[in-house]
Amino acid sequence: MIDTRLESALSRFEPDEFTRVKAIAESATLDLLKGRGAGSEWLGWRRIVRDPDRDLLGAVRKHAEQIRSESDLLVVCGIGGSYLGAKALVDLFPDKQEDGLQVRFAGYHIGGSALERLIREMETPRPDGEEKRIHINVISKSGSTLETALAFRVLRGWMEKKYGSEAKRRITVTTGPDGGVLNPMVHKLGYKRFVIPEDTGGRFSVLTPVGLLPVAAAGLDIEALFAGAESMAAELERPDIRILTYASARYLLHQAGVSIDVVGSFEPELESLTAWIQQLLGESEGKEGKGIFPVSAAWSTDLHSIGQMVQEGRRNVMETLLVVDQPISNLKVPTDPEDSDGLGYLDGLSFHQINRTALEGTVEAHSEGGVPVVQIHLDRLHEETAGELIYFYEFFTAVYVYMLELNPFDQPGVEGYKKAMYRRLKMEGDGKK
Amino acid sequence: MIDTRLESALSRFEPDEFTRVKAIAESATLDLLKGRGAGSEWLGWRRIVRDPDRDLLGAVRKHAEQIRSESDLLVVCGIGGSYLGAKALVDLFPDKQEDGLQVRFAGYHIGGSALERLIREMETPRPDGEEKRIHINVISKSGSTLETALAFRVLRGWMEKKYGSEAKRRITVTTGPDGGVLNPMVHKLGYKRFVIPEDTGGRFSVLTPVGLLPVAAAGLDIEALFAGAESMAAELERPDIRILTYASARYLLHQAGVSIDVVGSFEPELESLTAWIQQLLGESEGKEGKGIFPVSAAWSTDLHSIGQMVQEGRRNVMETLLVVDQPISNLKVPTDPEDSDGLGYLDGLSFHQINRTALEGTVEAHSEGGVPVVQIHLDRLHEETAGELIYFYEFFTAVYVYMLELNPFDQPGVEGYKKAMYRRLKMEGDGKK
Repeated sequence: MIDTRLESALSRFEPDEFTRVKAIAESATLDLLKGRGAGSEWLGWRRIVRDPDRDLLGAVRKHAEQIRSESDLLVVCGIGGSYLGAKALVDLFPDKQEDGLQVRFAGYHIGGSALERLIREMETPRPDGEEKRIHINVISKSGSTLETALAFRVLRGWMEKKYGSEAKRRITVTTGPDGGVLNPMVHKLGYKRFVIPEDTGGRFSVLTPVGLLPVAAAGLDIEALFAGAESMAAELERPDIRILTYASARYLLHQAGVSIDVVGSFEPELESLTAWIQQLLGESEGKEGKGIFPVSAAWSTDLHSIGQMVQEGRRNVMETLLVVDQPISNLKVPTDPEDSDGLGYLDGLSFHQINRTALEGTVEAHSEGGVPVVQIHLDRLHEETAGELIYFYEFFTAVYVYMLELNPFDQPGVEGYKKAMYRRLKMEGDGKK
Repeated sequence: MIDTRLESALSRFEPDEFTRVKAIAESATLDLLKGRGAGSEWLGWRRIVRDPDRDLLGAVRKHAEQIRSESDLLVVCGIGGSYLGAKALVDLFPDKQEDGLQVRFAGYHIGGSALERLIREMETPRPDGEEKRIHINVISKSGSTLETALAFRVLRGWMEKKYGSEAKRRITVTTGPDGGVLNPMVHKLGYKRFVIPEDTGGRFSVLTPVGLLPVAAAGLDIEALFAGAESMAAELERPDIRILTYASARYLLHQAGVSIDVVGSFEPELESLTAWIQQLLGESEGKEGKGIFPVSAAWSTDLHSIGQMVQEGRRNVMETLLVVDQPISNLKVPTDPEDSDGLGYLDGLSFHQINRTALEGTVEAHSEGGVPVVQIHLDRLHEETAGELIYFYEFFTAVYVYMLELNPFDQPGVEGYKKAMYRRLKMEGDGKK
C-alpha cells in the first residue's frame, strides 16, 4: 500500500490556489489515461502492466532460475535506465543474495581500473576453492551505448577465453526488438535474448526484462513485483487523489521557485531506489529551463553532511522522504547494565522505532526551517509494494511533467555531450591510423 | 600537483568584476592566514599540518600495522566528519584492500537490518574456513552521537561475547581529549585511544587520527598523505593564485544566483571523495540563507540520469569536476577482428583516453549549455596528491566561506533536528517505563 503525506508541502499555499492547480493535474491525468499527451508513443510502461504478458514473465523467471542454478556471479552490464531500476530493486533486498547468486554491475562508467577489479573478482575462486561460474546479462536497447559496449567487449572476450564455445550459454542479451548492434550478435552467436519493447523508454523500463531478469536472478519474486504494479495500475485507471495532490504540490512548489528536491530515505536499503527516482524525475522534467533538481540523500547519514545546507541554506529546497512503515528488522538496543554510554533510556527500543523518531524529528526541524517535506509511505518492504511504488512513481512523473507542459518521455539534452564526445572519439580513432 | 581550470566559470564575468572580487578573496586569505577570521578557534586543521606531530603519525602507523597483522576485518564506526574522510581515502585506493585487511563502515545510519548484515559478514568464516578476526575503531568526539553510539553498543556487545576479556585489545577509540562518553570507557576498560584535537571540527579532521588510523589500516601510506598536505600548506602560506581565482569564481557564481554545484568525477575511485567535498562545502557555506548546494555525481554514469537536467533544466547549475591526469589503469580496448559491436575505430585506445574524451565532450556540452564548469586536476592518483587535495580543499573552503561573510567552521543548523529528535526519544524512553 502506498500513501502520501503532503501537509508540510501544501500548508504554504491557499486552498483556492490548490483547487485551481488540482484541475490542471486532473486534466494532465486524463491526457495520460487517454494517451493524448506529448510523447504518447512512449506509453509501453502502461501497456505492459495493464495487459501483462504472463508467458514472458514465466520465461524470464525460468531463465533466471537456470542462471541461478548454473552461476555464482551475474554481471549485469548496462547504464542509465538499463541499470538503475535493476540496481534499485536488487539493493532493496540485499539479504536475498547472501546464500545464492551474487549480482554485480558493469558498463555504467568508463573506469578501466574498476572493470579490472571486477574481473579479478570474477577470477577469485569461491570459498570452497572451485572456480566461480559467471553469467553476463548485457542490457542496451541499441547496443551501441559507449560505456556498456566497451565493458561488454572486454567481458565477452574474457568469457570466450574462459568458456570457449560454451560462453554463449552464459551470456544473455536484453535489447530492442530488431536492429542495433546486439541483435546481429544474437543471431550469429546464439545468445539467449530478451526484448525491450520499442515503446518503452529507458527510465520507464524496469518492469520489462531490463529489470526483471537481473532481479529474478537476484532471488526476487517478480510475479509479486508485477502483481503490485498491476494493482497500482488498476487503482490509477481513474484520477487518484494521491497522484492529484502530490503532482499539484510539486507543481506549486516548482512555480514558487523551489529548485532542489532532496530525495531520501532513512532505510539504507532504499538508497538505490532514490537514485532511480532521481533519474526518473530529473530526466523527465529537466528541460526547456524547467524542473526541480532531484538530489539523492541517505538519512540519517546526510544530516551530518548536507543537513546544515537543507536546514539553513537558500530557501529553494524541498524534500521527498520514502518511508517504510513496518520494521525491516527487529533489532533492539541491547541492555548495558552499567549504561556506560548513557543510552540506557533507549534500552529495549527497536532500531526501527529510533530511526522513525529521527525521521519525525527531521521532518519537524526541516518543515520549521522552511523546507516543505513530501512523505511517500510504503506499508512494508516487499516485492509487491516495490511494484506498487514503481508504477506509482512512473505515473506520477508523467502527470506532473505534463503539468509543466513538457514531454515526460524524451531526453533531448543527453545528445549534447554525446555529439561532442563522438566527434572527438572519431578524431582520436583516426589519429591512431 | 593540483591545478585548476576556471575558464568556463570565469568567462561570463567582466575582468573588472573579477579584479574587484579577487581583492576580497585576498583579504579573506589574509584573515585565514593570520587567524583573525570568524571561528578562528577552529584552525586545528592548519596547525596539525604546519607543525606535524611525527610521533603521533608513527604511533598511528604502528597501531595500524598491528591491526593489519591481527585482523581480517576492521569495522570503522562513525558518521559525518568521523566517516566521510576515511571513506573517501579508503575508496580512492580499493586495490590496497584486495590482499589484506578489509574495511567496513558502521554507525553512520540507524538501519537495524544493515547492521545485522554487517554482523553476519563478521561471523562468516574466511575463505580458508578460519574465523574472521575483527577489530573495531569507534570514532566520535563526544561519544554520544546517536547513530555511532547505538551501533557501537551492539558491536561492543558482540566483541565481548566473542573475545571476552581480549575484546579490549580489539577495540580502538578515537575521541576528544577528555570528557564525553568514550573517555571514561577507555579508562575503565583499557581500550587503546587516539585523540581528536579540541580545535579541529569534524569535517576538517581527516588528517587527525579520525582519518589516519582507518586509512593506514587499509594499507595507505599516511606519511606520504601527510607529506602532500604539508607541501600544499607550504604553498598556501601566502595568497595563492589558484585559491584566489577559484574562490573568486565560486563567489561570483554564488552572487549571480547559481544555487547548485554538481561535484563529480569520471573516475569511479573518486566517488566517495566527492561526498567528502559535499559535506565540507555544504556544511561550511549553507547558512544564513546562503550557499551553493553541493550535489555528488558519478560520471559518466550520471550523464544518463541527471545529465538531462544539468544540460537543459533551470540555468542555476554549476559543475565541479575532479580530474586525474595520469591513467589509473592501462586497460585498452581489446581488438575484435570481426568488429561485431562497431567499436573497431577505438581498438587499442586506452579506457583512460576514452574516459578523458568523454570528459572533454561533457565539458564542451555543459559549458555551451550555460553550465560553468570548474576543473580541479590532480596529476596522478597517489597518497601524496590526495593529501595535497585535502588541504587545498580545506583551505579553499575557508577562504570562500569567509568571502560570503560566514563562519566556515560552525554548523548551527544541525542542532535543529537533534533537538526535535532527542525530545521525542526521551518521551519514547519514558513511555516504556
